[in-house]
Amino acid sequence: MNPKSIIAHEKNLVWHSAHVTLADRIQMFCQIPATVWFTGLSGAGKSTLAFALEKRLLEMGQASYVLDGDNVRHGLNSNLGFSHEDRTENIRRVAEVAHLMNDAGLIVISAFISPYREDREVARRIIDPERFLEVHVSTALAVCEERDPKGIYKRARAGQIADFTGITSPYESPADPVLTLDTSLADVPSCIEKVLGILMPRTKLTV
Amino acid sequence: MNPKSIIAHEKNLVWHSAHVTLADRIQMFCQIPATVWFTGLSGAGKSTLAFALEKRLLEMGQASYVLDGDNVRHGLNSNLGFSHEDRTENIRRVAEVAHLMNDAGLIVISAFISPYREDREVARRIIDPERFLEVHVSTALAVCEERDPKGIYKRARAGQIADFTGITSPYESPADPVLTLDTSLADVPSCIEKVLGILMPRTKLTV
Repeated sequence: MNPKSIIAHEKNLVWHSAHVTLADRIQMFCQIPATVWFTGLSGAGKSTLAFALEKRLLEMGQASYVLDGDNVRHGLNSNLGFSHEDRTENIRRVAEVAHLMNDAGLIVISAFISPYREDREVARRIIDPERFLEVHVSTALAVCEERDPKGIYKRARAGQIADFTGITSPYESPADPVLTLDTSLADVPSCIEKVLGILMPRTKLTV
Repeated sequence: MNPKSIIAHEKNLVWHSAHVTLADRIQMFCQIPATVWFTGLSGAGKSTLAFALEKRLLEMGQASYVLDGDNVRHGLNSNLGFSHEDRTENIRRVAEVAHLMNDAGLIVISAFISPYREDREVARRIIDPERFLEVHVSTALAVCEERDPKGIYKRARAGQIADFTGITSPYESPADPVLTLDTSLADVPSCIEKVLGILMPRTKLTV
């Protein structure tokens, strides 16, 4: 090994130990990272709540990011379908990304049907049970189907969509969510206040 | 549809349009997102440079995050091996995560061998050519093998590791990187200064 290589090598070791720490990130973003995990039927209001929460957090100076079907199913998980196996892999990857983003210092808000209890438990473990806030958007199937904003319930009832949660594929309700929200009974701002009531004590720095 | 549902539905539409924009994020983080993509042989110094750059950016008040084998291969891409097909999927997923993190407002620093030119072109397209800064860590194979910090070249030469880049698997050098760095010729701080010379004009807000 020539002297320059030795110096570079020793520098490597030194620099490698000088990683940015979680404490650095907490200080930079003035927040303790967490993931708000919205789960519920299609049309229950998950994405609506997620983007409203993200907007509200921005107004409060908190840095967050929404992971939902629009930015994940068309990108990272574009090679996955809706079979049980693919749904499981879909949720696993989302959880891994949430974990990375939490590690980067951000608050993550995920909005996926995530119908299987076991998959959400995997997500909880990947993300970290301390950071994982499971919120059940419990809006009833009848209401979701009545809303049908994308016309997909109609297509599912007509047999045009396989493995459709609530119709031809099961939805397993959370056993012990930190919060349950029914968007047919409460409006978006009051739902968001309830989420903040849970989230802020976990994420806010006490000075 | 009952009146409450109608109100909720209309609120959905209103709230959905109130997404946080890239402009909001640029203002919040005081930076324009970009991805510094380090590519090169194992032992070339990619991770060392990546973590040194992340630390330096923190000191400058810029929010960044390193994606490398340690946090991606053991998590998101733990179900991938080192075949050509799996390497391609590995890089595709990393690029999708970098894209999401850029979208969230962060500067991303990736440190993967990423040996195939075609895969890096896919990454460039996914991330956005405007945001993708390809840096070739060109440290020669002989130097990398001499360093061999994890003893993996020795194992590869002994035939204990299949598909090892530089030994039994090809490395395709970038045709037109924004920067080429040889860590056996320049020390870490001077390499970082060169990266900053390229990165900061792209990412810094001009007030």
